[in-house]
Amino acid sequence: MIGKDILEKFKEIVGRENIFLSKEALKAYSYDGTTSWIKEPDVVLFPTMNRQIASVIKIANSAKIPVTPRGAGTGLSGGSVPIRGGIVLCTTRMNTILNVDTENMTVSVEPGVTLQDLNLRLAEDGFFFPPDPQSMLSATLGGMIAENAGGPACLKYGVTKQYVLGIEVVLPTGDIIHLGSKTLNNVVGYDLLHLFIGSEGTLGVITQAELKIIRVPPARNTIVAVFNDSKAAGETVFRILENGVIPGKIELIDNWVINKFEDMMQIGLPRDAGAALLIESDGWPEAVLQEIGKIAEIAARYGAREVRVAKDVNEANKYWMGRKAGFAAVFGAAKTVLAEDVTVPRGKIPELAEKCKELGRRYNVEIVVLGHAGDGNLHPAILTDITNNEHYDRAVRAMDEIFETALRLGGVISGEHGIGLEKAKFFTKYVDPVAVDIMKRLKMLIDPNNIVNPGKIWD
Amino acid sequence: MIGKDILEKFKEIVGRENIFLSKEALKAYSYDGTTSWIKEPDVVLFPTMNRQIASVIKIANSAKIPVTPRGAGTGLSGGSVPIRGGIVLCTTRMNTILNVDTENMTVSVEPGVTLQDLNLRLAEDGFFFPPDPQSMLSATLGGMIAENAGGPACLKYGVTKQYVLGIEVVLPTGDIIHLGSKTLNNVVGYDLLHLFIGSEGTLGVITQAELKIIRVPPARNTIVAVFNDSKAAGETVFRILENGVIPGKIELIDNWVINKFEDMMQIGLPRDAGAALLIESDGWPEAVLQEIGKIAEIAARYGAREVRVAKDVNEANKYWMGRKAGFAAVFGAAKTVLAEDVTVPRGKIPELAEKCKELGRRYNVEIVVLGHAGDGNLHPAILTDITNNEHYDRAVRAMDEIFETALRLGGVISGEHGIGLEKAKFFTKYVDPVAVDIMKRLKMLIDPNNIVNPGKIWD
Repeated sequence: MIGKDILEKFKEIVGRENIFLSKEALKAYSYDGTTSWIKEPDVVLFPTMNRQIASVIKIANSAKIPVTPRGAGTGLSGGSVPIRGGIVLCTTRMNTILNVDTENMTVSVEPGVTLQDLNLRLAEDGFFFPPDPQSMLSATLGGMIAENAGGPACLKYGVTKQYVLGIEVVLPTGDIIHLGSKTLNNVVGYDLLHLFIGSEGTLGVITQAELKIIRVPPARNTIVAVFNDSKAAGETVFRILENGVIPGKIELIDNWVINKFEDMMQIGLPRDAGAALLIESDGWPEAVLQEIGKIAEIAARYGAREVRVAKDVNEANKYWMGRKAGFAAVFGAAKTVLAEDVTVPRGKIPELAEKCKELGRRYNVEIVVLGHAGDGNLHPAILTDITNNEHYDRAVRAMDEIFETALRLGGVISGEHGIGLEKAKFFTKYVDPVAVDIMKRLKMLIDPNNIVNPGKIWD
Repeated sequence: MIGKDILEKFKEIVGRENIFLSKEALKAYSYDGTTSWIKEPDVVLFPTMNRQIASVIKIANSAKIPVTPRGAGTGLSGGSVPIRGGIVLCTTRMNTILNVDTENMTVSVEPGVTLQDLNLRLAEDGFFFPPDPQSMLSATLGGMIAENAGGPACLKYGVTKQYVLGIEVVLPTGDIIHLGSKTLNNVVGYDLLHLFIGSEGTLGVITQAELKIIRVPPARNTIVAVFNDSKAAGETVFRILENGVIPGKIELIDNWVINKFEDMMQIGLPRDAGAALLIESDGWPEAVLQEIGKIAEIAARYGAREVRVAKDVNEANKYWMGRKAGFAAVFGAAKTVLAEDVTVPRGKIPELAEKCKELGRRYNVEIVVLGHAGDGNLHPAILTDITNNEHYDRAVRAMDEIFETALRLGGVISGEHGIGLEKAKFFTKYVDPVAVDIMKRLKMLIDPNNIVNPGKIWD
């Protein structure tokens, strides 16, 4: 519990309209996109300036009150759940796009700007910010940087960290620090910028960011390749890339998603197909034409039973809307969904996809396999029910085996969602203990009282 | 001085043939590419295995003997100069390409593999490793990772850190640690991988690396645009990119380099031109054609007095060989060359280039301006003579003003060479003191006895 005097101070700092204390508000800010981790904070603050955040954190640091930074709360690892109570520090009211600089192809944003708002603004000048998590409508850039978010477009364009040139951060001590710069090349001492990117809000609060943007490519087209099994689909993925074609996106969907897709959109995908690849090529019109041709040829060579090239933008959009809806459908398909985020070297996708299917049969649970196949980043989702002990136990054992498989294949347990609470118990099991020790000491160095987002990653 | 008993132990560890103690050897390993920093080590070791490095470092750590890791010694910031004496630990005999995996588009290398050897091997399968420092013939991958090396191709393809998936490092305590993975997406705790990349060999010795490789593009062509002044050339650079063309390379050369170029190659560039841009487009043949056309159009619009498209590979190669020779000529053009590495947001290149010319006039010193203009990374080189106090003093003051200008324009003092010894005195002047403090404590955390590459970056 936070004392009344401290709450009064917070009110003074952020303003009466930017502090929530009602029961409903505390409930609303007690969970994120995972829904399996719930803990109410004592107070929710909506600062509007970096100095307000510094003042709040200074008080929290001396009173040892946990501070959990939060953007839109769309994360999928429990990263913004205030698991030790205290303050939820919400950046959504710091949502100004400060500057769009087309000459340097950079943009300055406050952390609460959503990806959608940024891209709408950039579209006016023909630019875009490539990383595209499923939650793009509401995900904030601060959250995306804190989790190093990915998405389908990251195959060709790279993940969030490749677009962050500089950030301003309020440290757990209340100091305001500037990391990185406005330039692309930068070797000036240790790369603290990358240390903070993907640190899941445990090292400080991002209060501003300088991002790289790029031109919207002049042309794009979509091709769908349908396969009898996910193994052949998986092989096609790495054969396309190995042959020198780097499409904008390569997404894998399995039979379960294909059927959801058809239920919703009736686009005529065969309901008995084992898997399909949705592939987008973008660039110069002539290059897109070339790439689509090559992709079709390679898909056929590696076992596609059907290849469709979208006739127009409408058809292409339909496929991509269907994919988004398919992803979303997974989360509504069961009381509890264990949505994983394993990543393997992309040549191992066929093996991982097959193993998931086999584990589904062995443990008698539905395992949906979909994801950013081009990056080797799959999202196997196990449909279960946490209130049904026996079923849930089988689901968890299947998930464990998925992790073991990914690691055996040279992969990692999280590609883009982060560790958060969801995977903390696997973290110390699977990461080099010397590395874990350095990370823990690093955290202590920067946050000696462990007040910023405590309980995450390894606790 | 290192005791005889310890030298005996080193002999046992690395083998008699892998230890150098002669006067000539100590001299040969006393400097790097800068030539302005010279300090002889007490011994030069050529380990051939990670365990040998671990054993050497354990002994050095307990006896508090400095260990300076070194690749080919081609660095341009004094990073591999053993400024406190002790051991030079040379990785050049660990030069095996361990594995080329075209399916996953990755390669495993020992740290002493040279960029040239790697690219020759990759060419057999139609792949390449994009970052391309001037020293590519002998630069080692370990050194490139330690300095986060850049080069002309980094405009389109990104710098070294974007190609490092994982590394094995011997820590200053002798522990062997694995950071990163074989996968592209990876959010698993703090990004220690990027902390070690670009840390200039001060946090440990890289003993193996897993790198991303890409396909050699099917087509490429070169265009040269000649301008009356570097301001117009600078503007053309960012206008090309702003218009959605991302060439493989955009290099700026000034009048001094154009004349060296002509002295050597007689290619017919006008000797009175203020500046020229060498631009390479690569990708699908049809896209290259499109891009070259667009680049020519934009260059003409922003003031190019002449635009030449290479007729064939021979002509294109001539331009690029000329550029390399021009860069090299700078280093031979005076007794002392202060070769800088400032980087600015690319929209500021015209201003930086103009300022360099003005400073040359004001301080009456020759300042050659050339560099990776597409990245905003210029290498202004001041021709001087360290034995002529009066001249050298003017040169240093001009250099100081170049740094000040770069920072005022939102830039940084090193884009790709690192801080090393060369810029240590500017480092604490220009970097956020809170960030510097964190870096120093980080160094202490990982290297408590300050034995690995001491005296660099900030000392």
